[in-house]
Amino acid sequence: MNYEPPVGLLCPSIVTSNNGPTLSRVVAGMWRMGAWNLTPQQRLTLIKRCMALGVTSFDHADIYGDYGVEALFGEALALQPSLRARMQLVSKCGIKLVSPARPGHTIQHYDTSAAHITASVEQSLKALGTDYLDLLLIHRPDPLMDFDEIAGTFSRLRLQGKVRHFGVSNFSRHQFECLNRRVPLATNQVECSPLHVAPLFDDTFDGLQDQGVRPMVWSPLAGGRLFNGGDAAGERVRAVVQRIADELQQPFASVVFAWIMQLPSRPLPLTGSGRIDAIVDAVRATQFSLSRSQWFEILRAARGHEVA
Amino acid sequence: MNYEPPVGLLCPSIVTSNNGPTLSRVVAGMWRMGAWNLTPQQRLTLIKRCMALGVTSFDHADIYGDYGVEALFGEALALQPSLRARMQLVSKCGIKLVSPARPGHTIQHYDTSAAHITASVEQSLKALGTDYLDLLLIHRPDPLMDFDEIAGTFSRLRLQGKVRHFGVSNFSRHQFECLNRRVPLATNQVECSPLHVAPLFDDTFDGLQDQGVRPMVWSPLAGGRLFNGGDAAGERVRAVVQRIADELQQPFASVVFAWIMQLPSRPLPLTGSGRIDAIVDAVRATQFSLSRSQWFEILRAARGHEVA
Amino acid sequence: MNYEPPVGLLCPSIVTSNNGPTLSRVVAGMWRMGAWNLTPQQRLTLIKRCMALGVTSFDHADIYGDYGVEALFGEALALQPSLRARMQLVSKCGIKLVSPARPGHTIQHYDTSAAHITASVEQSLKALGTDYLDLLLIHRPDPLMDFDEIAGTFSRLRLQGKVRHFGVSNFSRHQFECLNRRVPLATNQVECSPLHVAPLFDDTFDGLQDQGVRPMVWSPLAGGRLFNGGDAAGERVRAVVQRIADELQQPFASVVFAWIMQLPSRPLPLTGSGRIDAIVDAVRATQFSLSRSQWFEILRAARGHEVA
Repeated sequence: MNYEPPVGLLCPSIVTSNNGPTLSRVVAGMWRMGAWNLTPQQRLTLIKRCMALGVTSFDHADIYGDYGVEALFGEALALQPSLRARMQLVSKCGIKLVSPARPGHTIQHYDTSAAHITASVEQSLKALGTDYLDLLLIHRPDPLMDFDEIAGTFSRLRLQGKVRHFGVSNFSRHQFECLNRRVPLATNQVECSPLHVAPLFDDTFDGLQDQGVRPMVWSPLAGGRLFNGGDAAGERVRAVVQRIADELQQPFASVVFAWIMQLPSRPLPLTGSGRIDAIVDAVRATQFSLSRSQWFEILRAARGHEVA
Repeated sequence: MNYEPPVGLLCPSIVTSNNGPTLSRVVAGMWRMGAWNLTPQQRLTLIKRCMALGVTSFDHADIYGDYGVEALFGEALALQPSLRARMQLVSKCGIKLVSPARPGHTIQHYDTSAAHITASVEQSLKALGTDYLDLLLIHRPDPLMDFDEIAGTFSRLRLQGKVRHFGVSNFSRHQFECLNRRVPLATNQVECSPLHVAPLFDDTFDGLQDQGVRPMVWSPLAGGRLFNGGDAAGERVRAVVQRIADELQQPFASVVFAWIMQLPSRPLPLTGSGRIDAIVDAVRATQFSLSRSQWFEILRAARGHEVA
Repeated sequence: MNYEPPVGLLCPSIVTSNNGPTLSRVVAGMWRMGAWNLTPQQRLTLIKRCMALGVTSFDHADIYGDYGVEALFGEALALQPSLRARMQLVSKCGIKLVSPARPGHTIQHYDTSAAHITASVEQSLKALGTDYLDLLLIHRPDPLMDFDEIAGTFSRLRLQGKVRHFGVSNFSRHQFECLNRRVPLATNQVECSPLHVAPLFDDTFDGLQDQGVRPMVWSPLAGGRLFNGGDAAGERVRAVVQRIADELQQPFASVVFAWIMQLPSRPLPLTGSGRIDAIVDAVRATQFSLSRSQWFEILRAARGHEVA
């Protein structure tokens, strides 16, 4: 199959919420950038290829690559700083990893205090070589989080021009709404794939649709398990997706991305690959949709039973 | 035991919600009508007997009897069309069954699009031989449902005079509230019986009580398992219900219906039988109530443990 | 280790909610008072020692001690009635126990009817020898509870001057909010300890924080299982708490109380002991806090895994 970008293939953009940021519908996840072993120039080439496809939003976190990915990206961006104004940078904070890069950490834990959020943003800005983030997410719901303190911190960061929009990640529906009552949230980035359908049924996506907020979705391909996982659900889904891919004459991965984007909450899926072909597959999925029957065939394969 | 309707036994009516429809407290479920093997005249007789008891509300769905029950009912109603104005017709849509009656369906799935809801209503009206439904329910929560699209479709159907009130079925508390914020819902029809007490404890009934909305209840007798099921919970409940029936000198089934109607959300239970005696038993339950001790004896038998 | 109250140790007070009562941050639970085998004078001495520590709030329920604790407390209070004005009395109702003291009860069940709440309050006032309660809680969520009826009953009791503030116990987040919409609730008293972390993750504490309501916490020491329980979680938590207690040079129990009070919903833990030393340990916990790393070490021990 030929993965060359079709002439004119361009990823559409989407506003994530009322007064929220405009992101590309497919977001390039930089999580694994450290493992791609690219030179700064190769990283820049990848970034420019993404942007040429309309994939202008890049997803980061302070902790990715053992606290290293943001600096790798910033190093590439420094080779062509004019790109910054045409891209959107997303980052996250709130997890503290045990890491050689953070010798003070003795246990993996959360910190959503004003002091840590502020310090983490400063560090992200420095590493990325930019003076603002388009979107900052609290990485995980913290049992010690104080909603008012987080909201106040977000407001200060916005006033200082350091972060333009705010959101959360891996929050429950109720946790999202608690914070969203205090400061408008632009998204909730959660895991979803045919092998992780929980947010379709646990109020997460219903709640975001209700609030007019688009989720971001991590691991839409189930971390690769859709391609080669050996469990029963993985095998069932793989066979059905392949059949539908053949019917629609679309790449396998594109069918999965389309399945997710068809949800009424209108998710923005993340890619996780450094191969431009994989990102092209995701963008192709913005150009077609599944029939309702095809959509439910994948759901049935995922759950192992028909809808009631 | 003598199941003849006591002289003067009359089922009360109830308004299901603020500005909602007035239904009979006991609703006659037509789900199994196809299996009753009745002539049109016999069906008419059953309908008239129900109505003489005050059971004026009849519960349908597009799919019941393999897409056939509405037409069976309509055929009977056509024999005496003046009954229409004195009865309330409830129907549902949103499920697509694999069926000889719908050769285009290749997988059981949901469809809550404007196009399908509208087409299903038109088909229900035609089959029932009426120009309006009193109440239309979305049959199951659909992971692809768009709350705004459903609300808009409901509003159009109301303006066109085709459906007077709207509701849902089998929705979670949160799903109900998402749609209810957009268009006032008259009910949520859910499963409940002493062998299915989930809605008492999962926010469903609390949420409906909170919103001033009465649930409808399907399978109040657990599909017959209360009479003859062999599992431990069924046996425990059967023994306790029988003892209380003896104490109160009421039929066994009446005790179960009373147990459900005593809930503070004030449910409207459905019958599922074509025997008028069974419907009489349900109506009898509107005339008495259990003591709190009796009510909790049935709950204890259902759950196998005392309240904390 | 020396458990004598440090000179000047004084428990702070806290307002439980907007317009709610001011209670001592540590609340003296009277649940087991019947088992302490104290003379009226000894009970008075304990009450006075608590109050000298700033522990001015005493937690009761109609049913404690087989319907006997309130009278034991009232008997002591009658020896020095001037204490009443400087203490806060909390009681509960809604459970009916099978008990020689209540020969009419044939099954343990709930009763949240206006009649029962009112009668139970009257009985509590009489037993305690006071003409008002500072705070009345519904003891358990009742599947037969009528939110409007409870709210109306609370309003009448307040107008009559018999109860000043109202709350609930063991309610889910949603149940709390249903009643709180009708009458302002001052607290939700729930179980929480390192061996029962459910309210940190099931919306209970998030919801109370969101509403600006402080929880009360029963069994903060897991009913003693933290000291000597033999299960794996108990052993893990015990070892970690002991290490942190050594690091901080604080008593073991104080570390557990501090761990709970550090939650952002700002819980008021209950003591359950008749030993003043145990109450001193709880009050000590108001004077220090754990580092975030220490806090998450206890959470990790409790759950057996790190945060994600």
